[in-house]
Amino acid sequence: MSDLSREELDDIYAFAVQLGKDAGTMLMEAAQLRTGDSRAIQEQKEHVQKENAVDLVTETDENIEAFIKQQITSRYPSHAFVGEESYSKGASRDYLITPSPTWCVDPLDGTVNYIHLFPMFCVSIAFIHNNKPLIGVINAPFLNQFFSSCAGRGAFLNETQPLPLIRNPVPTMPGKAPSGCVFSCEWGKDRKDVPDGNLHRKVESFMNMAAEIGGRNGRGGMVHGVRCLGSATLDLAYVAMGSFDIWWEGGCWEWDVAAGIAILQEAGGLVTTANPPEDCDTAPIEDVRLGSRLYLAIRPAGPSATETGRQSQERTVREVWKRVRNLDYSRPGA
Amino acid sequence: MSDLSREELDDIYAFAVQLGKDAGTMLMEAAQLRTGDSRAIQEQKEHVQKENAVDLVTETDENIEAFIKQQITSRYPSHAFVGEESYSKGASRDYLITPSPTWCVDPLDGTVNYIHLFPMFCVSIAFIHNNKPLIGVINAPFLNQFFSSCAGRGAFLNETQPLPLIRNPVPTMPGKAPSGCVFSCEWGKDRKDVPDGNLHRKVESFMNMAAEIGGRNGRGGMVHGVRCLGSATLDLAYVAMGSFDIWWEGGCWEWDVAAGIAILQEAGGLVTTANPPEDCDTAPIEDVRLGSRLYLAIRPAGPSATETGRQSQERTVREVWKRVRNLDYSRPGA
Repeated sequence: MSDLSREELDDIYAFAVQLGKDAGTMLMEAAQLRTGDSRAIQEQKEHVQKENAVDLVTETDENIEAFIKQQITSRYPSHAFVGEESYSKGASRDYLITPSPTWCVDPLDGTVNYIHLFPMFCVSIAFIHNNKPLIGVINAPFLNQFFSSCAGRGAFLNETQPLPLIRNPVPTMPGKAPSGCVFSCEWGKDRKDVPDGNLHRKVESFMNMAAEIGGRNGRGGMVHGVRCLGSATLDLAYVAMGSFDIWWEGGCWEWDVAAGIAILQEAGGLVTTANPPEDCDTAPIEDVRLGSRLYLAIRPAGPSATETGRQSQERTVREVWKRVRNLDYSRPGA
Repeated sequence: MSDLSREELDDIYAFAVQLGKDAGTMLMEAAQLRTGDSRAIQEQKEHVQKENAVDLVTETDENIEAFIKQQITSRYPSHAFVGEESYSKGASRDYLITPSPTWCVDPLDGTVNYIHLFPMFCVSIAFIHNNKPLIGVINAPFLNQFFSSCAGRGAFLNETQPLPLIRNPVPTMPGKAPSGCVFSCEWGKDRKDVPDGNLHRKVESFMNMAAEIGGRNGRGGMVHGVRCLGSATLDLAYVAMGSFDIWWEGGCWEWDVAAGIAILQEAGGLVTTANPPEDCDTAPIEDVRLGSRLYLAIRPAGPSATETGRQSQERTVREVWKRVRNLDYSRPGA
């Protein structure tokens, strides 16, 4: 597959932005239907229970994905399409994204939030080429927040405010990071009470990040705050905004993160793996692979007198790695 | 102090709503100043560090409180005023609210969020009489969300949408609550790594609420999701909306919760103490005392075929109590 021209990419970007707006309107209308009329309750009763109580899916999900897929395939019939809903009905969760132009879509990220009408839900649309997320569009209609980016064109909130929000200059990472940082993480769906299982490893990691300096046998990170939103996509969007300094999570699929990674990288953020390497101080810090299911994101950072922005991000990555446990989220068949 | 007439209360409500709008505009303008210009960074550097890294206060905080106090004292000179900023400069944190008409104000709740420009921050204004929060106004300008209530007049989002959002009928609490519930909680500022200290007790409680049914020696609650926003006021507002089913927290002061409690109670929610009694199954469930610092909030709930809404809320309170630990947050001098 050859490279795309600037004009082609800009054309795809404009299309993706309009698609995100239209899909967001569908999502908002579906949410509004559920407030103040009895039909809403009926719909809520019809939620299909999937693997467990945490994993619900709604008809809205499927309708919006069908709309997005139809729009894409009629406009760009040669492009591949990977959607959360169609994917999860398939036989496996193999990694399906090839170097060819591919759309990766989550029609409703933050499903639990949507069901309860907590505003942190969104449509997430990414365009990927040569395995790189080049375009990201995230529409959270209940928050009036629309995030978008295109490689080489910048990342924006509501199409006008460049990301990160604080940018003249962009602050460097705190000198004692993770201290001073807002740390975003998720409890997720894996709630098995198994000693040293993912739930216990996560909570041990959260504790290390939160506890006072000197606590936890020297691992205490005294982060400024711990936040859990229930949407990996919006976690990444808020890292791109600079609102969250650090996001650490395992278990996400590519549709949960593709658009957020595109926006965060375009804004100047760093995304690497959640799992600490053997030597946290010297291991190379590589850009995350989209299918890895393990993510550590650091917000955009500017230089200080003694470091480049990238150096301050990498220092933060190493300090996080020293405080977190390895998580076990392999791919089926991997 | 005699009772207020309906007319007097309505007059105070209209005043409080306008005050919340004006203060929210000040807060939004201060936030916007920090994006995209260098003055913003300067201001950020000037944040005063209080007790520890988690407890920052900004000039904005003080300016907005001074504005609110000035407006109130010129309109209602006989009313008492208790504000977070003026309070924290005093000698103690004794409980100062008397049966007289009193305003209880947090000019900026979610200070950490505000500093990082994460949208979950707000102005919080409550009017209290005979120790009951009668009026609540919460303005979260970055979210475009304005919550308000007055005893006997209902609770609203953006002045038009009655709370809770889903209401024809209002759903009862899930039959296996806390399973099926969104559980909101906060890590807070108390990060001491002391065995059986508040941090450890909180995290043990979070784990019990999150873990699979049957896990944690039968305490596993398998909640639908765990959320941490970093704003007690907005936690309560989202319980009033019905977005969060359960909020459990210790350590808040009255200005953190007064407006949220007013709105939640007017919407039909229940607020009692966070700390489990000796017998969770039979202890009476009393309305929380405003100065208690220990809060368990349950969303508005309608009846089912077998329970009143209140019965389903009380059942949920007891199931939460069985899964959480006592927290140690006494008042200075209490």
